[in-house]
Amino acid sequence: MKAANYYIKENIRIDDCPPITPGPGQVRLQIAYCGICGSDLHAWHGKMDHRLKPPQPVGHECSAEIAELGPGVKGLEIGQRVVVRPLDPCNTCPACKAGHSHICQKLKFMGLDTPGAFQQSWTVPAHTLHKLPRNVPLDVAALIEPLAVACHDIRLGEVKKDDYVVVIGAGPIGMLVAMVARAAGGRVLVAEVNPARLRFAADLGFETIDPNGADVAERVEKATATAGADIVFEVSGSQAGISLMTKLPRTRGRVVMVAIVSEPKAVDLFRVFWRELRIIGARVYEPQDFEKAISIASADPASLAKLITSRRPLEELPAALHDLSQGTNDMKVLIKVS
Amino acid sequence: MKAANYYIKENIRIDDCPPITPGPGQVRLQIAYCGICGSDLHAWHGKMDHRLKPPQPVGHECSAEIAELGPGVKGLEIGQRVVVRPLDPCNTCPACKAGHSHICQKLKFMGLDTPGAFQQSWTVPAHTLHKLPRNVPLDVAALIEPLAVACHDIRLGEVKKDDYVVVIGAGPIGMLVAMVARAAGGRVLVAEVNPARLRFAADLGFETIDPNGADVAERVEKATATAGADIVFEVSGSQAGISLMTKLPRTRGRVVMVAIVSEPKAVDLFRVFWRELRIIGARVYEPQDFEKAISIASADPASLAKLITSRRPLEELPAALHDLSQGTNDMKVLIKVS
Repeated sequence: MKAANYYIKENIRIDDCPPITPGPGQVRLQIAYCGICGSDLHAWHGKMDHRLKPPQPVGHECSAEIAELGPGVKGLEIGQRVVVRPLDPCNTCPACKAGHSHICQKLKFMGLDTPGAFQQSWTVPAHTLHKLPRNVPLDVAALIEPLAVACHDIRLGEVKKDDYVVVIGAGPIGMLVAMVARAAGGRVLVAEVNPARLRFAADLGFETIDPNGADVAERVEKATATAGADIVFEVSGSQAGISLMTKLPRTRGRVVMVAIVSEPKAVDLFRVFWRELRIIGARVYEPQDFEKAISIASADPASLAKLITSRRPLEELPAALHDLSQGTNDMKVLIKVS
Repeated sequence: MKAANYYIKENIRIDDCPPITPGPGQVRLQIAYCGICGSDLHAWHGKMDHRLKPPQPVGHECSAEIAELGPGVKGLEIGQRVVVRPLDPCNTCPACKAGHSHICQKLKFMGLDTPGAFQQSWTVPAHTLHKLPRNVPLDVAALIEPLAVACHDIRLGEVKKDDYVVVIGAGPIGMLVAMVARAAGGRVLVAEVNPARLRFAADLGFETIDPNGADVAERVEKATATAGADIVFEVSGSQAGISLMTKLPRTRGRVVMVAIVSEPKAVDLFRVFWRELRIIGARVYEPQDFEKAISIASADPASLAKLITSRRPLEELPAALHDLSQGTNDMKVLIKVS
């Protein structure tokens, strides 16, 4: 089978590798599609070398069919279509014991800390699998992992019907957050500075605003009779977005930190105090978020499919990473792995 | 009656003024004691001129006896000992309608936005009063307002029995937060850089640590079997404290922002994301926080009394403000108003 092995910064090669026979409690998958995540791009740029063990494939946004069952695996069968929740917790640390194994203190994130899905045959623990309904195509199914991130964000942000929601940053995760917030009954405003992404959001039926050309706080005040937004999702990771996020919520409103922000950023803690805001960190997902994502994908696969702007074969993964790092107007790029 | 009127920066004069007859729903108080708050010092330095209407007295941490009842006031009587919850909300804005009138969008904070308690006769709305139990001395009762701040912080931080709590900054509010957290069953560590305040906290029986001489995160990790603190209270307002606050909590742990931080500060939002922390803004108090503070003061007035390090007559308010701004080792300075 073919595997796209990461060797060193900006060097991924397509190798022929033997499939790994699944051990007890494991399952071997034939990967269908795998999306390119920002963290894959980060890895390609050599910024994840402290977590990778080259040569290894990265990738975790996949859809697959079961190819082989290891000893003792129950409730699954060969040919079953699945998605992978790529979290391998230790189950013994205080976070795991407190019921937060998705953010285990020694979490192995599969596709970074262990080999990933940019290979035709991927052997994984059976506990990571979720079954796919028949009506979800395998390309759309590759979006379920990032969709589960959005479901987690919306659940932690407690979005409910008629809530006024602002999403700052309309990349793939921002768009998914906006879609799930709308599905939860929220009135959603998408704030984004990139014109192509603004058009993309508008084409999906969202109200949009460019913070460089308009006063977002004023717009939110008008829309909410001066109250402010119920929930703001910060998905840009930019200083401008982080400066904006505290200006928008109502008293006791919430800000969900979705973006991965590498350096400390200036936050208006006076506003947090003044309006009794809550800033809520949200990372990856729990099993129920995957189930929710699968139900959303099953209810309306066509809407999700609109986020897929490019499909390329496994051999073109290095080229796709190169193109993305040059800046394209792509929303989600899928790799057809097998 | 005598009133300590603020005129202009660093200029407060003791004037003879006529008492104000209470109107409908109002009560005239004879003020016994009033503590000096950081915001009073701030006002004295001319930094609250945008909210003050000179000449006016500031001050809001008071104890009093009822001197006169306005028309229509029920359930109170002359001679009753009371404390004042100095919040006058509009009752019509979205925050008030949502049940958050303590942080009303047009809140009048009495003693800044309206005249305050550094006068012998203070006429206030009856809805701001809480009755005092007989066993709470009037000097200790002047601490109930800041104690109610601490009760609000502990309630919003959801401190419960055996929680590991870190209080960053041991000024008067930090000490009260530590005391209320301990009363709620928390194991409390006080982090402070000022040696006098560290000694003060230790004398009150708290575990203490100086972040300049020891690794607070390491201490917390050891004390919690690597889990981290359940709740951190940021009461220092310093960049060092704000950098520390995100290092300490466990997964899904909480940080309560108590300090008033005038400028945006660098916050480690990666850690907020990584551990799914919650940063919770907490401002002033609600009626139940005052009732809780009164019950704590009534249960153990002697412990609270230890925070009172200086008592001065009304005539010495300007001198007391001057001394505090030069830096003293005082914890709480009370003014004996009448």
